[in-house]
Amino acid sequence: MKKKIAIQGIKGSNHYKALTELFDETEVEALECNTFQELVHAVMTGVCEKAVMAIENSIAGSILPNYRLILDHKLQVTAEHYLNISHNLVALPGQGLADLVQVKSHQMALHQCSNFFSKYLHIHLIEDVDTALPAKIIAEHQLTGVGALVPKGSAELFQLTTIAEDVQNNSLNETRFVVVEKQSPTGLEVNKATIQFEMAHEQGSLAKVLNAMAAHDLNLSKIQSIPIPYDIWRYAFIVDVSFSNPMQFQNAFSELSKISINPTCVGQYKNGKS
Amino acid sequence: MKKKIAIQGIKGSNHYKALTELFDETEVEALECNTFQELVHAVMTGVCEKAVMAIENSIAGSILPNYRLILDHKLQVTAEHYLNISHNLVALPGQGLADLVQVKSHQMALHQCSNFFSKYLHIHLIEDVDTALPAKIIAEHQLTGVGALVPKGSAELFQLTTIAEDVQNNSLNETRFVVVEKQSPTGLEVNKATIQFEMAHEQGSLAKVLNAMAAHDLNLSKIQSIPIPYDIWRYAFIVDVSFSNPMQFQNAFSELSKISINPTCVGQYKNGKS
Repeated sequence: MKKKIAIQGIKGSNHYKALTELFDETEVEALECNTFQELVHAVMTGVCEKAVMAIENSIAGSILPNYRLILDHKLQVTAEHYLNISHNLVALPGQGLADLVQVKSHQMALHQCSNFFSKYLHIHLIEDVDTALPAKIIAEHQLTGVGALVPKGSAELFQLTTIAEDVQNNSLNETRFVVVEKQSPTGLEVNKATIQFEMAHEQGSLAKVLNAMAAHDLNLSKIQSIPIPYDIWRYAFIVDVSFSNPMQFQNAFSELSKISINPTCVGQYKNGKS
Repeated sequence: MKKKIAIQGIKGSNHYKALTELFDETEVEALECNTFQELVHAVMTGVCEKAVMAIENSIAGSILPNYRLILDHKLQVTAEHYLNISHNLVALPGQGLADLVQVKSHQMALHQCSNFFSKYLHIHLIEDVDTALPAKIIAEHQLTGVGALVPKGSAELFQLTTIAEDVQNNSLNETRFVVVEKQSPTGLEVNKATIQFEMAHEQGSLAKVLNAMAAHDLNLSKIQSIPIPYDIWRYAFIVDVSFSNPMQFQNAFSELSKISINPTCVGQYKNGKS
């Protein structure tokens, strides 16, 4: 029996594409979740062991609510994967650009394809809560005049035709996905970590932590402030660091425990770019 | 004639509420924009001088795509306002909780009210792209069986009835709005600033900048990594700092210009919490 892995969205979505690039499709199958909350719920209740979750996009930035979900449920990040994002315009077979009256997609996808659509002003852009779902609905209801944006290679899943390929403004568009689980498996090869900590509200306190990390040769690639729930407008910091030797990280994390509040290792994993 | 100020969403939305708390309603009126892109476009093309834009929520965190829009269009933040977020469940007059079959709202609003709805499992939660819009549609089409979540005080705008007040899980829920304009007016009283800068990819480089800020007595309240477009997976940093004297900020910003790349002042304004 194939192992179920939770994704947000349906087959044909970018989450699905990330899943197929991360895992062998002959061994796993997607558990389609409507929302990220549902996806986390599936892992927490043991319906599946792992979930694949978008965490940031190279244009739009971090998806902070997903960080919140990971932290609130004490999930561990055990892998990361960078997916190239391409938007193909699809519709029912036989339909062309001149036939389309509207294109339905997620706000972000429509935004990322604004240059292309500015040349076709007869097409109304309609926001939807999802990207792949409008494609599924077009196919199921055999809707003419309506287009959708799906990742490369997904048109066939819906038996739709690709009208235009790579209609995104910026071809350098990647989404970083993480694999989350309740516990980290042992023996993972790791050279990157995500940590969270809070600071006392003292001037220069964050600088002190970053100085300590630099002293331990950790390379900080990213830092985010994230609100601390029930402690209005106080922030925690989430930091991604990379290192060549896991001991470096252990030593730095020990020191962090002395100079910050509630330090947490959100996960150690292999750099998806290395 | 009343001055138009752009908001995202319609009258009755949280953006509208923020507008009425920031400005005198006898002097201004809302220019309703479907998307944040439209809102920025209205300012850039001179349709209106100012726009009110949500920038972060105390539970969900920063709305990074809005930072991106501000930076891309070189807009200036000239004011900030913190709005208490309350979700009231509304429906057509005469309707009660037992009558509702579905509640339509933005994913974030539904998520923030999950505890309340977990007691009413006969109600299906349907994601929409907006909060106030479903309320408007209920009123216009006289839809029975459907509820929406709107801010306190907005039910009357739609001639709907409030079925339950303050249905959010966490009563400490605020959204920070900013006023953006093409240029900063002169003579503003300021004690807070938002700045953006990039760093060379050297270990400890961010720590160096934060050390310099601390040395100039700037209080760093928030830091975000934001992707640099067309330079995949390199980040810029956006930092909020507060100060008692504008000269402190000027001096620190001069030093920043020497130790960082492309430093930009995104705006100086009055702290909305002071």
